[in-house]
Order: sequence, then C-alpha cells, then structure tokens
Amino acid sequence: MSREDFNDVYRHSLAHILAKAVIEIFGKENVQYAIGPQIDDGLYYDFLLPRTVTQEDFPLIEEKMHEIIKRREEWIYREVSKEDALKLFNDQKFKIELIQDLPEDERITIYYTGDDFVDLCRGPHIENSQELLGAAFQIKSASGSYWRGDENRDQLQRIYVYAFPDKQQLKDHLKLIAEAQERDHKKLGPQLDLFMFDETAPGMPYWLPHGWRLYNTLLDFSRELQDAHGYNEICAPIFNNRKLYLISGHWAHYQNNMFVVPELDRDENGQILLDENGSFKMKPVEEADIYSAKPMNCPNAMIVFKSKTRSYRDLPLRLSENQVLHRKEKSGQLNGLLRVQEFRQDDDHTFVMESQIEDEIADIFEITDTIYSTLGLSYRAELSTRPEDFMGDIETWNTAEAALKKILDAKYGEGGYEINEGDGAFYGPKIDLQMKDALGREWQCGTIQLDFQLPLNFELKYTAPDGSLKQPVVIHRALYGSFERFIAVIIENFKGAFPFWLAPTQVAVVPIKTEHNDYAEEITKLLRANKIRYEVDYDDKNMNAKIKEFKNMKVPYIIVVGGQEAENRTVSINVRGSNQQMRGVPLDEFLDMCDILNEEHRLELITERISE
Amino acid sequence: MSREDFNDVYRHSLAHILAKAVIEIFGKENVQYAIGPQIDDGLYYDFLLPRTVTQEDFPLIEEKMHEIIKRREEWIYREVSKEDALKLFNDQKFKIELIQDLPEDERITIYYTGDDFVDLCRGPHIENSQELLGAAFQIKSASGSYWRGDENRDQLQRIYVYAFPDKQQLKDHLKLIAEAQERDHKKLGPQLDLFMFDETAPGMPYWLPHGWRLYNTLLDFSRELQDAHGYNEICAPIFNNRKLYLISGHWAHYQNNMFVVPELDRDENGQILLDENGSFKMKPVEEADIYSAKPMNCPNAMIVFKSKTRSYRDLPLRLSENQVLHRKEKSGQLNGLLRVQEFRQDDDHTFVMESQIEDEIADIFEITDTIYSTLGLSYRAELSTRPEDFMGDIETWNTAEAALKKILDAKYGEGGYEINEGDGAFYGPKIDLQMKDALGREWQCGTIQLDFQLPLNFELKYTAPDGSLKQPVVIHRALYGSFERFIAVIIENFKGAFPFWLAPTQVAVVPIKTEHNDYAEEITKLLRANKIRYEVDYDDKNMNAKIKEFKNMKVPYIIVVGGQEAENRTVSINVRGSNQQMRGVPLDEFLDMCDILNEEHRLELITERISE
Repeated sequence: MSREDFNDVYRHSLAHILAKAVIEIFGKENVQYAIGPQIDDGLYYDFLLPRTVTQEDFPLIEEKMHEIIKRREEWIYREVSKEDALKLFNDQKFKIELIQDLPEDERITIYYTGDDFVDLCRGPHIENSQELLGAAFQIKSASGSYWRGDENRDQLQRIYVYAFPDKQQLKDHLKLIAEAQERDHKKLGPQLDLFMFDETAPGMPYWLPHGWRLYNTLLDFSRELQDAHGYNEICAPIFNNRKLYLISGHWAHYQNNMFVVPELDRDENGQILLDENGSFKMKPVEEADIYSAKPMNCPNAMIVFKSKTRSYRDLPLRLSENQVLHRKEKSGQLNGLLRVQEFRQDDDHTFVMESQIEDEIADIFEITDTIYSTLGLSYRAELSTRPEDFMGDIETWNTAEAALKKILDAKYGEGGYEINEGDGAFYGPKIDLQMKDALGREWQCGTIQLDFQLPLNFELKYTAPDGSLKQPVVIHRALYGSFERFIAVIIENFKGAFPFWLAPTQVAVVPIKTEHNDYAEEITKLLRANKIRYEVDYDDKNMNAKIKEFKNMKVPYIIVVGGQEAENRTVSINVRGSNQQMRGVPLDEFLDMCDILNEEHRLELITERISE
Repeated sequence: MSREDFNDVYRHSLAHILAKAVIEIFGKENVQYAIGPQIDDGLYYDFLLPRTVTQEDFPLIEEKMHEIIKRREEWIYREVSKEDALKLFNDQKFKIELIQDLPEDERITIYYTGDDFVDLCRGPHIENSQELLGAAFQIKSASGSYWRGDENRDQLQRIYVYAFPDKQQLKDHLKLIAEAQERDHKKLGPQLDLFMFDETAPGMPYWLPHGWRLYNTLLDFSRELQDAHGYNEICAPIFNNRKLYLISGHWAHYQNNMFVVPELDRDENGQILLDENGSFKMKPVEEADIYSAKPMNCPNAMIVFKSKTRSYRDLPLRLSENQVLHRKEKSGQLNGLLRVQEFRQDDDHTFVMESQIEDEIADIFEITDTIYSTLGLSYRAELSTRPEDFMGDIETWNTAEAALKKILDAKYGEGGYEINEGDGAFYGPKIDLQMKDALGREWQCGTIQLDFQLPLNFELKYTAPDGSLKQPVVIHRALYGSFERFIAVIIENFKGAFPFWLAPTQVAVVPIKTEHNDYAEEITKLLRANKIRYEVDYDDKNMNAKIKEFKNMKVPYIIVVGGQEAENRTVSINVRGSNQQMRGVPLDEFLDMCDILNEEHRLELITERISE
C-alpha cells in the first residue's frame, strides 16, 4: 500500500473503526459521535461521552479496534435521501445538524462498517476491516475540542491516533516525536535563558540575555553578508498613518492582521475619555489620525526610494531592514516562536530594472547558500507562478518567470524543483525556501518575491539611460524569514547546542576557589579582547556545581582555573559533548582556535577541531 | 548690569518698548497687543495687526525702538481696580480677556511707558527708557502664533527680538546662532543621508543608511562598554497589556504620553466594524484586552527579574535594553531628532541591595566618563533630592542621597555640582547629566535614578545572605539618554564631520576610470576584511565629481585609484579637512592607521595622525 493511499483511504477508514470501538465500549446510547478526519500522521474523532477518556482507556480502545479489524467488518456504501438520513441518525444530534445543513434534494452518502455502525461520509474507504491488519496505530491523546470550533457549543473529546502502514513506520514516527519533544524550543528556550513569554504580551517574546546574543549574532552574520553584497540597511518607523496603508493596499487586504492605534479623545490632561458604554471615545474614522503598527516593511521602503530622484545608475538599490513587525494572530494560533505577533525579518527590498532581475536573484541565492551551508542546513526552492487574478502585463510576468526558472534550472536541473502553478502572489511570482532540519522536518522560512504592484501604487520612477522615466521592479526577500521562527527551528535543530560561532556563551570560566578569581578576571579580559562571548562564575561555591550549570547551558568550552595550573598560566578545559578534558593547553593556542572557529563560521564538530 | 538683571528686568522693559514702537508705526486703533514676555535670548510680543509684518519692517521697528529709548520715556507704576482696568483697556480685547480672568477684588498693576502706552504687568521694570541705551537688540523674526496657543482663537503675529546687555554679547550670540544654523541636525540629516521624516509618521524618524550605521556604531560602543561592566542585554515586547501598566503605575501617571492599542470589534474576516458615528467599534474598557506601546522599558525589566528566584548572589543584576519606545507628543512640540515620538534609549535597570548603591553608581560614572571622553565632550552632573511627595522610608532616602552625594563630592568636590533640592522623582533621588557641545550649549541627555517604588509595585524579592526575602533597589540609567536626541546633539557638535571611528562611511574609494574598477574592488575587499565602513563609486563619470560627492558627505578618507598608482599598488588619499593629499602611502600602512583609529575610539584630529 502506498503512503498516499494510506493517508487518503486507510486512515479515514481507521477513523470509522475508532468510532465503532468507542461505541462498543461506552454503549451506543451513551455516545454522540461528531466528525473524524484523517490528518498528517493519523486521524482523530470527536465524541460527546458520559465521562472523560483518560490514558488508562487507551489500551482498551486500541484492543477493541484490533478486534474490529480482525472481525473482517464489511464497508457498505449507500445513497439515501435527506429524509431517510435524518431518520437513520435520529439519535445522533451532531449528524442531524450536519445533514440539515445539506441541500434539500442532495443524495446523501453513508458508509456502514458492519451492520451496527453507520457514518455520514463521502468515502472512499477500504472494502473490509482486515485490509488494516498490517497497519500500525497507537492512540496519541485525548483532549477537549468544541463542536464546530465554537466555544459556545458542546465541548467534545477528541481522540487522536497515530496511524502508519506498518510497525516500522509507526516506530520511526514515535521516535521522531520523542526526539522532537526533547528538542522543543518552547522547552529549551526558558531552560537555556534564551527567551520567555509573559501573559501581558502574548505572542511577543521576551528575549533573555542568551537568546538576545544568539539573535544579534545571526543579525550580525546577515549584515556582514549583505554588506559584502552591496546592501544598505535602513530603519523605518514602526507606527505609520493609515494613509500609507491605503496607498500600499495593506489597509484593504491585510487589515485583519494589523494592530491599529486610533486617535482617542482625551481631556486637556491627556487622559482618555470614555463614552456612555465605558469604551474609549474616538473621532469618526474619516476625521481621525489613525496609525497602525507596520505588519511589513515594504511601504516604508517605497517611501525611502521615492524620497530622492533615482537614476538607473542607482539600481539595483538594496534597502534592507530588520525593524520590528507586528501581526495580529488569533490567540489559538500562537505557537512559541514559530507563530508570534511581534517579530523581525532579515528583510530587504531591492529595486531593479527588469533586465537586472536574473542577476539579482542569482546573487540572492549566493547569499542563501552561504547562510544555510554555514549553518549546516539544506533547503530546497519552490517556484509559484502567475495566478488567475494576476495584475500587470503578461509579457512582464513571462519575462520574470523565465528569469526565475532559468536560475532554478541552472541550480537544480530542469524539473529538479517543485513548481506550484498559479500559486504566485497577485503582484508577482515567488520562490519559497523550504529548510530541512536535523530531524528531516521541512520549514518554510525564506522567500524571494517579485513585485510589479507596489512600485505602481507608489508611482515609483527612475531615469533610464535614454532619459525616460521607468518603473522599477521590486524584489522582496527574507532569507532567514523571521528571526523568531528561524531561531525556533535552529534551537530544535541543534537541540540548543549551537555551533561555536553562534553559541550565546562561547566560553565559560570557572575559578576553582575564590582565590583564583583574579586570574579568572585576567582571562575574561583576554576573552573580551578576542571578542569571545564568555561568562564567569566568581561565586564561593563548589567547582563541580559551577561546571554542571555551564554544562546545562550547553556552553562549548568551560575553562577551569585554579591551583598550579593558574600559576603556570595553563588551563584545563571541558569540551561540550565530550567526556575528555583538554589539559595543559596554552591559553594563546586556545584563543587562536576560538578565533578560527569564529571566523570560519563553520559547523565542524568541536571535537574534530580539538584533535587537530 | 548683571546678566540676570538684564534677563529679568531689561528684556521685559524692552518688550514694552517693542509694543509701543509697533503702535506708533501702525497707529493705536490698528493694533491689538496681547502678551510680551522675556525669553532665553531676548523677548517677544504677540500682536493682531492689519497686515503681515515682513523682514522689510524690521529696520523700521528697530529704529523706532531706538528712538523711544532715546526719548527717556518714564516707566510709571499704578494699581487700579478691575473696573478701572477694564475701562482703561476698553479697546484692547486681549487685555480685556486677561483682566476678566482675574479675581474680582484683585488690585491690578499696570505700567505706563510715557503717557500714551500702558500695559498690564506685574513688573518690575526699569525707571526710564534711557537705561536701555547701552543694550543691544535685533529683531529675529516675525511668525504666526495663536492667542493662548489655541488654534481656534485669533492668529497673532509674534515678533521675536534678540536682546543683550551690550553689542559684543549680541554679536557673540548672533555668531552662535549662525554657527548653530549651519550645524542644524535637521538640515544636515537629510543632506548627509542620515535620517529623514515622512508626513505619514510625524516624530518617527526614518534612519537612512548612513544614519543607521552611525546609530549602530554608537550602539556597539555602548554594548562593548556594558559587556565589560557585566551588563546583560534583554529585549522585551513593545506592546504590553494595560494590566502591566496598571501595576507599574504608568496607566495612571503617564497615560497622556502613551499610544494605546484598543481591542476593536471586527467581523469574521477581521475587518474592523464601525459604529453609528463612523468610529471604530470597541468593547467597554473593563472587558477589553487593551495594549499600549511601551513608553519606558522599566515594567518589562521588573517582569524579567521576577521570572526567576533571585538571590543576593545574582546582584547587582544589570538588565540593559535598547528596544524601541513610543511617547505621544503634541505635534507642535516635535523638533527633529530632539523631540520625537519613537526612539530608543541606551537603557538599563540594575537591581541592587542597598549596600551596593554607592559602588554601582561609581561604576556607572566610570562608563559615563569613557563615553563622553571618547567623544571629546564634557558633562556635568546635577543631583535632585527628596521631594515633598516622596514615597518610602525616609531612612532609605537619606542613605541613598548620602551615597549619591559621596560619589559626586569625590568627583567634583563638595559644592562643586548643582543640587536641586526637592526635585527628585517621587520614587527616588536622581542625577541628571548635562552634556556640553562644541558651541558651549548644554543638553540634558543621560540620567541616573534610584527607584524604591517599582520593586514594591511588582513585589520583587531576593533571598538575602541570612535567608530572608528582601526588596531590591532599582537603578534606572541611560547614559546617551535617547539615541535620537544624542545623535542630534553630536551631529551639531561635529557639524556632520564625525571622528573616524563614528563616521558612517570611513573610507571612500574612487576609481579614476572604469578600467580601474577591478582594483578598486580588491581594495574594498581589504577594507571589508579590516571591518572598515566604505563606499565606492564605480560609475563611468568624472573623477572629480566623485570626489566632490564624497567630500560633501564628509568622508574622512577618499582613496583615489588609477593609472600607475594602481599598478604599483600605491594610492593617493584625500584627507577630510585638509587640502593636502597623501601620496604613495602603502595600503597596508593606511589600513594599520585605520585600525588604530578604530580601536582607540579617540577624537584625535585626523591631520595629526597623518603627520605622525
């Protein structure tokens, strides 16, 4: 059975078996069953039950499912009238509601699994339950969910099941899940002093000292690269008048994600006035000065382009920006650093002539390759082409798509990359970068997009070599994507044990006793002069406790200072991921090594370095 | 005549003479005179006049003022009843309004200047106009102003006059003004590609590439220093729920300066709904999730402190932050980078035990001295002590003030600094840093404040050595103050010609002809490897035009590359502020020199360096 078949048909059929099993256990009169679709790694079914399902029920339900599978229950397909369907499900209130929502004259498809279980379903399904004999499944969890996602309706119990074609695949998946849980950035973040959240700012991370160093190291790396490629960084306002977003189109098309700062009525002391409902008073929209926190940097880049007369000599003009963005999300969609409301991108808007598109995109891929190879990560590119509701001139689209294809062909060979036909933005085609982590999971991080629309909205022009005024094309690109999301991914990828050049604390210093603190301080001066990020623990406590704390923080090198070694200016060094200690390494050699590790920005294993 | 007397009495008397002169020129029936106070460098008077006063009127008005002074007009003081005052000023509507606002039984003081001019005034004044014979004055400008600052009332004309005790002082002042205008950061900012403003974001600067490099160089310098002094940088959310500001007290005490993000009613697609008045619909405040852009970093630092159990071993805990702040200002108060609505501070909150206050403040002064001496600027400190409405325990105040005094005494000698008695914040005493620029002007930039209140509001505790829970003291400090204001001041101080280590572009490269572009590119690689900020002009245009552009941008060194010199790998270098060129300087020597200039962070004159 192919993986695709399994996903489409077998998992869905297994959902019916889950429902049947639950009914057999709890008794039909006690179970209201709602819906049960297949999902990425299995399936779920929502039930209204007389009591809460707990972990102790899982083996029982699983056993019952196996029993049903072995019974060779037949799947029987029927078409019935709406009237008959209502009769058939007359004791199942959720099914009744679903049926009532269907058009009056529609033939309704139902599937029997054996004689005594029937479900509303479009199919297709397997023919009998024994087809699932080889499949491997395991209940993942039972948790609360609302009927139709509405918190004012019944609260149901959702039983999740992992399901795979065979035992090995299930085992692999469970291993991956366990590994992913251990790497979960939401767990490692606070543990490694990287970031935290507070209830007063949902989806808006607090960057703690270690996380902020990591952040800035990534930012510096991006700036270094961009500098070498002729980028100019700007920093534009966070709050902008709605007028800007009326021009850019964000007010019309992106309002749902925008945090809005209206002009509130205030008294002469600046205190905000309330209306009779106890809400803030504000002026009518058309008379008010309304601001919004920027959800994207693009409109501001247009303003900067437009602030001067621009000539073809100025192009490509690369205006990069790393300023904070805000996007409103539903609270249920927030997810650690992966889905936030306040974030920064390694953003850029490059203004080019059409003839420069190809070279510029090639240059962007060069930067991308450097970033990902430095981090030891791979990525693949997906091209999305002209959608039905495209804007602009079809010739320009063709030229642009051809340019993008040419680059991707050269990079991956023809057909060596995915094309999502018609999936581009209405303003231009785009390339999405899918990054692969150490567990083989893919994450959409970076993106490269062509835009013919914004330059039009802002009436941007440059003087062409022939003296005429032409409209530039804009390339939007972010290669990390958002720093927040990218950091979430690399925390999980590296399990918090970042390569030396990225590590928030690169070297820790542990004086054995407080009498060695002076020498430790001398070492910190050397480390600082060598631009190495360090920490030192001068406290009067046990040496091993200090070492353990730094090990827990996954510091690459821990220098222990004391006794004879200190006198001799040599050190003992703990190496992350190794049980061995380096002894008698002269400090200057160690610093040289750090320097090489820092400069190379490479992901060599530290132990390899050491053995050199 | 002392400068103080002049300010208090003579300038005020001169305002009466200005009014009398304007009346004599325009005719009494045509002039409504409003108010005319003395100000920092002279005085002004507001009038309602039949026509606009232009520059051509200035000599006429000045001449008339001299004439009146020579006439020896007597100043005569009278007290009249409100009723009599109303009669006396019956044709002067602004005076009438002022009189009507006075209490019924108040005796009203008026001053005559000669027989035919009388003004409402508390005095004191000179006795006759000839006392002003030695004074020097000059009309500065005439501009619009509203009666009582209310844009719905009469628009008046405000005539400004510079006034000083003698000609030399006026001359000095005019020179200073001219010099200041040339250095005006609002003029130099766009000219040097440092920053700009757009109407869609008033008071919120757009940092352009050069300005943003300057900004980041200052930030890096601050970080380097703070790193060496054991600071930990964090980055907290910009938007925070009102709940945070209810705890901190900002919602009650600082609301007038806060940008508020209310919860707006939206439809299922996220589009904002309007009420019957065409305003956004909002939930009542008590039911809504209301956010505000943070006006200060303090509350977030308290949250981070509180997120972990803290021990005396963790103190001092220095949590620095450079994140964006927003403070709402009246649009009339915005002033280039000096008064903005969006800015960053080199902020820090240090949590200490009371016994650590003195050492910590001393350490802060060490950092301050490094910053200001590196920039070649001087500053003086002012101490503000316990106000009447102080909070907390008087013992703690005394200890804290004594600690601050001890440090200032040691630094400046007893009495060697200003004390503003009772001028401290209600939450603790503070030290303000007054920075002096190249024109001798003082700017309040940095501040160091003790705070006993916020730790109380947030119920912060640490475990003391004896195991008890104690409340830490917080030291707020910002040494640049806001980056924006500080940059405004140093732009003016250096007239845009920043010392090498600060210069946005440190070195420019000019290939003489495009055939020298390859060699120019090789040089840029060297510059980049040496972490020197550079720009290069590869365009096919005249060499002198390229050099001129870079000179206009005040680039310290311009390397010209071409012909024989390029072959020989030697260069010709233009030095900012010098007509000489350095010829035949080997590139590696030049790079070494740049390295020294960068590392030393000193304000040596570049020409001195060269002659070494």
